[in-house]
Amino acid sequence: MGSGIRVGVLGSAGKVGQAIVAAIEAADDLTFTVGVDKGESLQAFVDSDTAVVVDFTHPSAVMDNLEFLIGNGIHAVVGTTGFTEERLDQVRTWLSDNPAVGVLIAPNFAIGAVLSMRFAAQAARFYESVEVIELHHPHKADAPSGTAYRTAKLIGEARTEAGLGPVPDATTDELDGARGGVVDGVHVHAVRLAGLVAHQEVILGTEGETLTIRHDSLDRTSFAPGVLLGVREIGERPGLTVGLEQLMDL
Amino acid sequence: MGSGIRVGVLGSAGKVGQAIVAAIEAADDLTFTVGVDKGESLQAFVDSDTAVVVDFTHPSAVMDNLEFLIGNGIHAVVGTTGFTEERLDQVRTWLSDNPAVGVLIAPNFAIGAVLSMRFAAQAARFYESVEVIELHHPHKADAPSGTAYRTAKLIGEARTEAGLGPVPDATTDELDGARGGVVDGVHVHAVRLAGLVAHQEVILGTEGETLTIRHDSLDRTSFAPGVLLGVREIGERPGLTVGLEQLMDL
Amino acid sequence: MGSGIRVGVLGSAGKVGQAIVAAIEAADDLTFTVGVDKGESLQAFVDSDTAVVVDFTHPSAVMDNLEFLIGNGIHAVVGTTGFTEERLDQVRTWLSDNPAVGVLIAPNFAIGAVLSMRFAAQAARFYESVEVIELHHPHKADAPSGTAYRTAKLIGEARTEAGLGPVPDATTDELDGARGGVVDGVHVHAVRLAGLVAHQEVILGTEGETLTIRHDSLDRTSFAPGVLLGVREIGERPGLTVGLEQLMDL
Amino acid sequence: MGSGIRVGVLGSAGKVGQAIVAAIEAADDLTFTVGVDKGESLQAFVDSDTAVVVDFTHPSAVMDNLEFLIGNGIHAVVGTTGFTEERLDQVRTWLSDNPAVGVLIAPNFAIGAVLSMRFAAQAARFYESVEVIELHHPHKADAPSGTAYRTAKLIGEARTEAGLGPVPDATTDELDGARGGVVDGVHVHAVRLAGLVAHQEVILGTEGETLTIRHDSLDRTSFAPGVLLGVREIGERPGLTVGLEQLMDL
Repeated sequence: MGSGIRVGVLGSAGKVGQAIVAAIEAADDLTFTVGVDKGESLQAFVDSDTAVVVDFTHPSAVMDNLEFLIGNGIHAVVGTTGFTEERLDQVRTWLSDNPAVGVLIAPNFAIGAVLSMRFAAQAARFYESVEVIELHHPHKADAPSGTAYRTAKLIGEARTEAGLGPVPDATTDELDGARGGVVDGVHVHAVRLAGLVAHQEVILGTEGETLTIRHDSLDRTSFAPGVLLGVREIGERPGLTVGLEQLMDL
Repeated sequence: MGSGIRVGVLGSAGKVGQAIVAAIEAADDLTFTVGVDKGESLQAFVDSDTAVVVDFTHPSAVMDNLEFLIGNGIHAVVGTTGFTEERLDQVRTWLSDNPAVGVLIAPNFAIGAVLSMRFAAQAARFYESVEVIELHHPHKADAPSGTAYRTAKLIGEARTEAGLGPVPDATTDELDGARGGVVDGVHVHAVRLAGLVAHQEVILGTEGETLTIRHDSLDRTSFAPGVLLGVREIGERPGLTVGLEQLMDL
Repeated sequence: MGSGIRVGVLGSAGKVGQAIVAAIEAADDLTFTVGVDKGESLQAFVDSDTAVVVDFTHPSAVMDNLEFLIGNGIHAVVGTTGFTEERLDQVRTWLSDNPAVGVLIAPNFAIGAVLSMRFAAQAARFYESVEVIELHHPHKADAPSGTAYRTAKLIGEARTEAGLGPVPDATTDELDGARGGVVDGVHVHAVRLAGLVAHQEVILGTEGETLTIRHDSLDRTSFAPGVLLGVREIGERPGLTVGLEQLMDL
Repeated sequence: MGSGIRVGVLGSAGKVGQAIVAAIEAADDLTFTVGVDKGESLQAFVDSDTAVVVDFTHPSAVMDNLEFLIGNGIHAVVGTTGFTEERLDQVRTWLSDNPAVGVLIAPNFAIGAVLSMRFAAQAARFYESVEVIELHHPHKADAPSGTAYRTAKLIGEARTEAGLGPVPDATTDELDGARGGVVDGVHVHAVRLAGLVAHQEVILGTEGETLTIRHDSLDRTSFAPGVLLGVREIGERPGLTVGLEQLMDL
């Protein structure tokens, strides 16, 4: 038996799953136990004495997975999407019956994206103006990205809390769309360009100075360090944790 | 009498005029002769043996100014706006009667803006994708800026000439405005932010790489080097020259 | 008598002092009382019932100023440089005799610079690599800037605390100076360029992603919002506060 | 037999070679004929009626390859390094005996890198100041990169031709290395950071404005579009062409 935390992976045959398995195997303090894919039994995690399971599967499967894992005392790190407030409440109920188990559910495991959002929200109350520019490859279907949308919402909330009014904007003559989309009072621009991967820039400004927080994801494995951070920490955090930033002591 | 080219200024009492007078006085190879403002006689340029006059005045005044200057054999460097094709033809007619005189009319004297547009148009045919982001202080009334609009048109023309089709864009789910305004098939985004002055970025992309051309104007005097370039060159370029780039041997 | 906090300024005839007076006068919740310059009596602050004094003077004057202000129960916001540990201890001693008085001493009042340093230090422990690039006008005598130096030190400390080793760097063949200067293990690059004012970029990287935190100071008044923040808060913070970030609830 | 230009590849089994074969096969107007690797006979190109051969092999092999190809009337597009002036002269001699053949030898096939160098050199004479920042992954052995070195040399030559003196720089107090390495009077900074691939920024500045030309290579296939451009054009350019920019009508 190898040393370190024993980690299993749900959806291990998919592209994301494979990258996570590789990252676990490359980490000295973690041991990969077993991968389970669609149609296979979750019992393999129990049999292999797995302590933490990573779930990047599908909204239709994730609730059954969590019920089983929590019931069997296994911690979970979840990147699967589709968590409504009702679903989170259901997870909390299961956890209240198994108070030693920790579950992390996060919409974004890229550490840089999480830090960007956090820093943008912290800085927002000190600046009159703020806009978000996200830039992605041209195969993306939605504009703006989910991350840009969430970033703008967090900024909007921070501005409201700080008592800031609307951003200054004297535009009277606008080509339709030039000033971007507006999310909670924050203008958001989406660029689509061959050669790009996934990038986001938050620009904040006040008299005489600007502050820019930029995140560049240059390949699809940028979620791996965040997943490993979750795996290492979740055993010490019983109950439900929503958002990777909760584990980052910011 | 000082040495070098003898230069006069129309609208010398205004903010722009004052900056131009200061730039002329600071240049070793130029001599400032006289400034003429609204209501004063242009005859002062003749009396002071002025060789070149700079005109940053008003569309309502500039044609009378040019008629006088050309008729008196004085070269002109013109930053005043409002030149239609009809007005340019009128200037050409006056110049055909005074073939030794040179007139430069340019919408933009910021050398960096001129180079940006030129480089963007040259690069455009080698890239699948291109977008323009312009960023200005929040007191600006139009979005996008005139420079961004012209830049996008030049890029659109270069793409058409090169036989490129539309830029790739899989967006199916867009928050209204997020993808920017569209000028000749080129997406243009306008950011308005306290703390900014005038900035523009053209991003071009193809498989695996991007090229970015960015111009930052950090104060309002960035037109001065371009005006001086025009003053120094226009005596050697009889006839009408439209656009500073014509004098830059690019 | 106007409303709001009554604020006086030491060194009010200087360039920085004038900008601070203007910012105080423009703020609805502050009242400017009196300016005192070299050779004038500090008693004017007492006579005018001043609550807070801003001191951007000189290392040779600031200690006498502080002794007087603290002794007269007046709060101080200090941007003057040259504070050694001994000087700070002296200020603490004076304050222990006047426990209701608050003194803020900060090396940098540009909010964006303060946020940049803070965010860089917070992010540092999550990234394998980090470098600092600062860019300034070519009239600057020191390279790197004091802010870049402090930023690199904060990053170096955060890396040490997190148990990170040296940054990865396979360079074996270097043109002298190409890899920059090194401060506490962090490479720092200084660019000097006409047209720039004061700019700094911290770039952090790990497998597949980078995070960039950039601060642009576009004019010399960018310290004003930070000074006003200090003026508004220092009355509620008795004792010595070092660094604007202490007032920012980050 | 497929349609379009018939193209063969030397070194087709290597990583670069494979990417080139894939790019040829994906292009409608090109037909891949045959790949030849170390130890195999070049005669395969003649037998397959190949019109153009791409050579990304090794300095020890490339001269024999070129002698054979030129002798057999086959055009060549060469990315192999190590061409001295003597080697280029030898190629010219062979070509003088086979005047219909075209050979393109280029140190860099990334179109963005070529355009960056060209634009930087064109812009250099209009700006007082210029510096180069290149940023690469931390596994790179040389600093600065070959491209940054060449870019700085081209800029230095353009400045000399334009009669510009040294860049303004008031630095008197420098941490060793902070101001970068110096190539022909141009300061060059090399950043090494996990998460980066290959990036370069040329920043030019004059009073009140800056111009930035940035190239980002996000994966190793960014040479492919340039190779295809060479393949398509070289048949029309008999003789030796050095540098991809010669084919780009800039």
